[in-house]
Amino acid sequence: MQNVGMKCTRCRQPAEHRFASHNVHFCDRCLGVFIRRQVERAIKQFDMLQPGQPVLVALSGGKDSLVLWRVLRELGYQAEAIHIGLGLGEFSQASLAACRAMAEMEGGRLHYFELAQLTGFGVEEIARANRRQFCSVCGTVKRHFVNRLCLELGFDTLAMGQHLDDEAARLLGNMIHRRQDFMDKQWPVLEGVAGKFARKVKPLVRLAGQEIGAYGRALGLPVCQVTCSKSRGATLTYYQEAMDLLEQRMPGTKRALYFGFLEGKDGPAPGLEISGECVRCGAPTFVELCGCCRLLQKAEARRGPRSDDLVGGHS
Amino acid sequence: MQNVGMKCTRCRQPAEHRFASHNVHFCDRCLGVFIRRQVERAIKQFDMLQPGQPVLVALSGGKDSLVLWRVLRELGYQAEAIHIGLGLGEFSQASLAACRAMAEMEGGRLHYFELAQLTGFGVEEIARANRRQFCSVCGTVKRHFVNRLCLELGFDTLAMGQHLDDEAARLLGNMIHRRQDFMDKQWPVLEGVAGKFARKVKPLVRLAGQEIGAYGRALGLPVCQVTCSKSRGATLTYYQEAMDLLEQRMPGTKRALYFGFLEGKDGPAPGLEISGECVRCGAPTFVELCGCCRLLQKAEARRGPRSDDLVGGHS
Repeated sequence: MQNVGMKCTRCRQPAEHRFASHNVHFCDRCLGVFIRRQVERAIKQFDMLQPGQPVLVALSGGKDSLVLWRVLRELGYQAEAIHIGLGLGEFSQASLAACRAMAEMEGGRLHYFELAQLTGFGVEEIARANRRQFCSVCGTVKRHFVNRLCLELGFDTLAMGQHLDDEAARLLGNMIHRRQDFMDKQWPVLEGVAGKFARKVKPLVRLAGQEIGAYGRALGLPVCQVTCSKSRGATLTYYQEAMDLLEQRMPGTKRALYFGFLEGKDGPAPGLEISGECVRCGAPTFVELCGCCRLLQKAEARRGPRSDDLVGGHS
Repeated sequence: MQNVGMKCTRCRQPAEHRFASHNVHFCDRCLGVFIRRQVERAIKQFDMLQPGQPVLVALSGGKDSLVLWRVLRELGYQAEAIHIGLGLGEFSQASLAACRAMAEMEGGRLHYFELAQLTGFGVEEIARANRRQFCSVCGTVKRHFVNRLCLELGFDTLAMGQHLDDEAARLLGNMIHRRQDFMDKQWPVLEGVAGKFARKVKPLVRLAGQEIGAYGRALGLPVCQVTCSKSRGATLTYYQEAMDLLEQRMPGTKRALYFGFLEGKDGPAPGLEISGECVRCGAPTFVELCGCCRLLQKAEARRGPRSDDLVGGHS
């Protein structure tokens, strides 16, 4: 992205970063100003957080969540982080190492749990037992436990690293297949249910992955460089490819899509109205068992529950 | 597309054509059956044509309109064709040659007009004078004259070669930019206004460009191989690229998008409700001058109208 002689749009010093969708160039320092402003604007626009409030960041080890943690702390929020180890070999080891390095760099608190400790299963075993797409199973299980642990750790709000690219790609898939129910819920804030569901906020929705990545590099954050080998073939990646193509040809297309969509929505973020409770774990659900417990039950049925092979974890 | 040992899904003979979105293989003969059935189905589904009725095909010289002409005649419609020469050098010459070769092969009647004869201007000059995107200007002018000439030639229905790829790409662009008014009109039939606007039908909307191209090659149609150099950079081509990428990764995505969209629409094709008339040419319009006359007026203002350089054409 570096051009010889490029000047920062804000301060006229030499610039290292060029973002076509905003038609701007930034030096490292002004990139930070830009990133913080966009996050502040998203937080204010969608009423995500109160000044200085405690918030738990769902930390994966990737650039997005590391930058999110940094920026929330820069903006004065009491942000701690949670990471769930999925037991996916090198990827999980590298992710945990990145999270720990970040916590040390940040002087912030990282809560670490292992899925095997929480459930008795690795995510691969759960996916195999259910014969469902890996990413979908992994997402369901991760969301379930991050949500539960967030409340158990005393936070009512979870901050997640999804950004403009993620949301635009997801929206594209939902539009193409006319998944109106999914679109109704695709909002930068998902309200919680007191004591049951954490409130979820996505402060990076105004930023592109490229912008976040540039800031992560400029700050020298210890971003995990190993990618999950399981994500290949996930349909979301195809929508991301298509949106990347459109963004490259017509800079600003992602913003036009996602923010146009949000403008078209009336009123505040949708609240959760779930009256039932999972008979197994107590999580709010429309049916007898919540989505995560349904997955776990099948995994148990396949091998019978065991407690002797639980892997120790620590928080 | 040819696979060794591939068998036709219909007749079990050796197959030359493979279409991933339908998960079928066809030999040349069964490809023809498939193509005609899809066209028949579209005509019936959207009430496009009455059996054997006269219809004018907008012939560009490309594979889509040549196949359309052939198939409509195969299905027993009294189909003649119209081609408008745009004066774009080699492209226009090759397009006209293809249309004439097709008319000869078909033993069908081709009505030929030149834009310079109709307006006194080449399409490049009109676009320059208006400082608007070339494809948009060219499309407006072509549509205007094809429509007018269709009625003057005694036809009330114009058949156009747009197919699934075109409609899916256009829909994608309209969805991304939330152009609801355009989406309301994006229908495989556009009703006409008696004596004012020809009824427009798109019998190829159930077929992909790849399927149409394969049929054109199987029949040995004299398809124009020169592409318009002006279409590079037209935004529609970017949406086509994005849809091609999605279709390649997830066969059937174009059908899901476009037919899902049509299902979501209630009732019959939208009628035109335009009360005003263009003061210059009498075409229905909401404003004083129709879109085409506005373009022509600017071209005239730029050089002053001349009649001495009109190029002769013939029908």
